[in-house]
Amino acid sequence: MPEFKPRAKFAEECHAIILAGGSGTRLWPLSRNLLPKQLLVLGGELTLLQQTVKRVLAAFDPSRIWVVTNEEHLFEVRKQISAMHSGLDGQVLAEPLSRNTLPAIMLGLDRFIGGNDKVLAAVFPSDHLIGNGEAWIEDLVKASHLAARQRFVTFGVEPSKPETGYGYITLGKPLDTGVFEVDGFVEKPDLATAEGFLRHGSHYWNSGMFLFRAKDFLKQVAKCQPELWDWWMAREERPLVQGYRDIPGISVDYGVVEKIDNIAVVRAGFAWDDLGSWEAMYRLGVKDENGNVIQGDVLAMDCRNSLLISQGGKLAAVGLEDMIMVQTRDATLSCPMKRVQSVRSVVDALKAQGSQLVESHPTVVRPWGSYCVLEEGPHYKIKRIQVNPGARLSSQMHHHRSEHWVVVDGTAEVEVDGHARVMVENQSVDISKASQHRLANPGKVPLNIIEIQSGPYLEEDDIVRFEDVYGRVNK
Amino acid sequence: MPEFKPRAKFAEECHAIILAGGSGTRLWPLSRNLLPKQLLVLGGELTLLQQTVKRVLAAFDPSRIWVVTNEEHLFEVRKQISAMHSGLDGQVLAEPLSRNTLPAIMLGLDRFIGGNDKVLAAVFPSDHLIGNGEAWIEDLVKASHLAARQRFVTFGVEPSKPETGYGYITLGKPLDTGVFEVDGFVEKPDLATAEGFLRHGSHYWNSGMFLFRAKDFLKQVAKCQPELWDWWMAREERPLVQGYRDIPGISVDYGVVEKIDNIAVVRAGFAWDDLGSWEAMYRLGVKDENGNVIQGDVLAMDCRNSLLISQGGKLAAVGLEDMIMVQTRDATLSCPMKRVQSVRSVVDALKAQGSQLVESHPTVVRPWGSYCVLEEGPHYKIKRIQVNPGARLSSQMHHHRSEHWVVVDGTAEVEVDGHARVMVENQSVDISKASQHRLANPGKVPLNIIEIQSGPYLEEDDIVRFEDVYGRVNK
Repeated sequence: MPEFKPRAKFAEECHAIILAGGSGTRLWPLSRNLLPKQLLVLGGELTLLQQTVKRVLAAFDPSRIWVVTNEEHLFEVRKQISAMHSGLDGQVLAEPLSRNTLPAIMLGLDRFIGGNDKVLAAVFPSDHLIGNGEAWIEDLVKASHLAARQRFVTFGVEPSKPETGYGYITLGKPLDTGVFEVDGFVEKPDLATAEGFLRHGSHYWNSGMFLFRAKDFLKQVAKCQPELWDWWMAREERPLVQGYRDIPGISVDYGVVEKIDNIAVVRAGFAWDDLGSWEAMYRLGVKDENGNVIQGDVLAMDCRNSLLISQGGKLAAVGLEDMIMVQTRDATLSCPMKRVQSVRSVVDALKAQGSQLVESHPTVVRPWGSYCVLEEGPHYKIKRIQVNPGARLSSQMHHHRSEHWVVVDGTAEVEVDGHARVMVENQSVDISKASQHRLANPGKVPLNIIEIQSGPYLEEDDIVRFEDVYGRVNK
Repeated sequence: MPEFKPRAKFAEECHAIILAGGSGTRLWPLSRNLLPKQLLVLGGELTLLQQTVKRVLAAFDPSRIWVVTNEEHLFEVRKQISAMHSGLDGQVLAEPLSRNTLPAIMLGLDRFIGGNDKVLAAVFPSDHLIGNGEAWIEDLVKASHLAARQRFVTFGVEPSKPETGYGYITLGKPLDTGVFEVDGFVEKPDLATAEGFLRHGSHYWNSGMFLFRAKDFLKQVAKCQPELWDWWMAREERPLVQGYRDIPGISVDYGVVEKIDNIAVVRAGFAWDDLGSWEAMYRLGVKDENGNVIQGDVLAMDCRNSLLISQGGKLAAVGLEDMIMVQTRDATLSCPMKRVQSVRSVVDALKAQGSQLVESHPTVVRPWGSYCVLEEGPHYKIKRIQVNPGARLSSQMHHHRSEHWVVVDGTAEVEVDGHARVMVENQSVDISKASQHRLANPGKVPLNIIEIQSGPYLEEDDIVRFEDVYGRVNK
C-alpha cells in the first residue's frame, strides 16, 4: 500500500475516532449482526469502513487514527483496515460489548488525550457514504478553527427531500459563511414537519460527524453524565474496558451534544448519505437504462426502477416495478420500494423466531479465517474451513463429535494428540472424539479444508479450548 | 402397498397408456428438463405422475397400465410408480429420445395390441390435476361404449374462464347426454375468441385424454402418417425403439386426431387443470386468510393474493400483491401474477446462456440414488451422494481426478482396484486417479457419503464405465 501523508495542517493537533461497532440489520439479508453494514462491500471494491479509512487517511497520519469496534467484529475490522494501511493494525480498540457511541468515543479519547489541553478529536461513523473528499477536508479544517475556539462542531447536510428517518439540526444565527450556531435537534420528524424544514431551509440533516476539543468534551461528560465520568476517572486504576459492562449505554447525541449550548454546525460541502435502507442503496446505485440497480447473478426482464441484488443463486425477475429484491445464499428479501422500512419488522420477526439468519451468514468470519456450513444432516455437518496464511486455530477438543478433515487447497499443519504432520491437497486425517487437535496454515496462500463432523451433538459450543493465539481459551 | 383391483368392467378390454415423457419448464425454477412437472410434488405427498397412476390403478389392472417416458427420466419414473404399486415396475417403456406424443402412444400400443381387434386404449397425460376420480371413471366407461362403436373419444372440459393458453374442442351435434360429435379443434384462441367460446358454450377445453379402439387408431396412422406407419410395420424385424431416432416428432392431436372425422367428445364430469403455469398453481392452492398460497420456508408480511414457495433458504416477502415468488436452492423467480407466461422467456434466456439452471437442480437424480454438488472450487468439487438401499454405482475410473469418500450415514461397500471393504459412518477412503472403483449400498437404509474430488478437470464426462447394472457402460 502507498503511504498516505497527512494533507491537512489541522490534523497535526487532531485525532480521528472512527466508530465501527454498529450492528444494524437495516440492510438485511446482506447485513447481519456479525457482518454489519460498515463491513460490507455495497458497490465498488471497498467496504464502507474501508472507504471511511481511506478518506480519513487522506487527512490524518495513521498514528492519529483510532478505530473503535466491539470484540465480535475485532478481527474482521482489523483485517479490513490493515488492508488499507499496515500502520493501522495497532490502532483498533475493541469494546467487550456494545454501549452505544458515547463510551466508544471516550475509549478513543483515552488513547491520545494525555496532558494535551489543545488536542482536537474528530468523530466519524464508518457506515455512511461520503462523496467529494476535498470538500470534506475543507469542512474539517473549518471545524478545527471553530473547535480551537471551544465550539463543539457538528456537520449538517442541506436536505434534498423531506426525509423522516434522519435527525435534524435546527440552525441558529450565522457565525460565518456556511457556519451557524445550533438552536436544537429534532429526531425523525413527521412528514409535514420534514416538509416544512425543507421549505424553510431552517434545518440540516445531522451527519453524525463531530469535531471538538477533547478536553471541552470531557468537561461536558463530567457535567452531563456523572456515571460515565466516574468510569472515566477510574481509568488510572484499571483499563476503561474493564468497567465497560457496568456503564450505561448512551449515544453521544443524547448524552452530550443535545445537552450543551456552544454548538456550531458546518454546512457540509460534501455529498452524504447514511445508507440507512435499501431505498438509499437504490437511490445511490448506478442505474441501467430502465432505472434498475443490478448487482450479481440477476436476470431482469421488463423491470423498472428496481434494486435487484443477488449474492447467492440466480435471481430471475420479470415485470417488477419499484421493487427491492436482495438474495443471499440462505435468504431472499422481496418488498416494494415504498415498504423499505419494513425490513426492520422482518428482522424483528426472525429474531423472535430465534433465527440464525439475523445473526450471521452461512460463511462466518473468524480471527483465523472463516467457515461455511455446506450441509447439515441429522448426525453430520459439513463445513468448508478457510485458514488465512500464517493463522492457527485454537488447540481444542470436542466431547460429542469426531471430525474428518480433507485438504482441498493449500497446506495444513495438523496436530492430533501431540502428533504433528503436514498435509497437502487431497490428504485427510481422522480426529476421534475427545482427541486434542489443532489446525494451522503454515503456507503463503489460503488453506481450504473440508470438515465432516459426525456425532449426536454438533453445535459450536461443544468445544474445549486449551490454547488460542486469539485469547479465546475457555474460562 | 395395497393391491388395487380394477373396478371398471370396461377395463377388461382396455389398456391405459400414461404419457410421462414431457420435459416442460413452465414451472421453472421448480421444474427442470431433468425433473419436469409430472415428477414434482406440487402440494400433497404424491407427484403428479403418482397421482395419475393412483387414479388409473383405481380402474385398471397393473398389468394393463403402460407408462411411456424417455430414458432421461426412466429411473425416476420407475422409482415413483413402483412406490405406488410394485407390479408397475416392468410396465415402463423408455423412448431413447423425445418424439412427441404420437410415437409414444404407438410405443404403448405395441405392448398390448397383439391380434386383438377389439382392444381399447386410453391415453392419459401424467402432468395434469384431476379431481373427482369417481366421475372420471364414469366418463371412461361412457367413452369405452363409444369407442366400441368405433368412435375416437376425447374428453372436453366446460370452460370456466376465457383461457387463451388451452386447446379447444368445437362441439358438433349431440350424441347422448354430455356427448357430442366434434366439429373441429381450435388451438390457443385470442381473448375475444375465447370469450365468445365461453359465452356461447360451443367449445370445451381439450383435456389431452383420449380413448379409442387401438386398431381403428392405427388405421388412421396408416392413412395420415405414412412415415410412422412404415416404422410401425418394421417392428416385426426390430424393436420400435431402434428406429426412434429417424422418425418425425409429432403430436397425437396434430398427427391423427385433427385429421379424422368420427370423433366424439365426452363432457368431463371431473375437475381438471393442466397446471400449465404458476397462476394455475396459485389458483388451485390452499389460500390463507390473505389469499396467499404459501409453501416452505416463507415469512410473509402484509402480502395478498400471492404465491410464495421456497424449497431453499428463507423467503421474506413484505407487502407483495398478486405476485409469484418461487425459490429453490440455486434460483429464484419473481414476477407479477399477470406476467406468469413470461416464465417461458426466462427459461429461453437461460437456455441461450447455456445455463445449467434449465437442465437440472443441484440435486441430480440417478438410477442408484442422487447426488448434490455442495460446493465447487477451482480444483475441487464437493458432493453429497445418496445411494438407495441395495443400489450399486457403475464400476468406473477417472483420468483427471482423485476422489475421497467419507461415509456420513449408512453402510457402504467400496471396491478399489479389486479390493473390497465395508465402511460405516465416519470412515473414509482415498481413490487415486485412474483407480478402478465402485460404490454400493448393501444396507436397508439410504447411504450418504461425501465425495471430495480434486484435480484439474472435474466434469461429469471424465468417467470410464467398466460395468453398470443400469446398462450405462461406455460404448
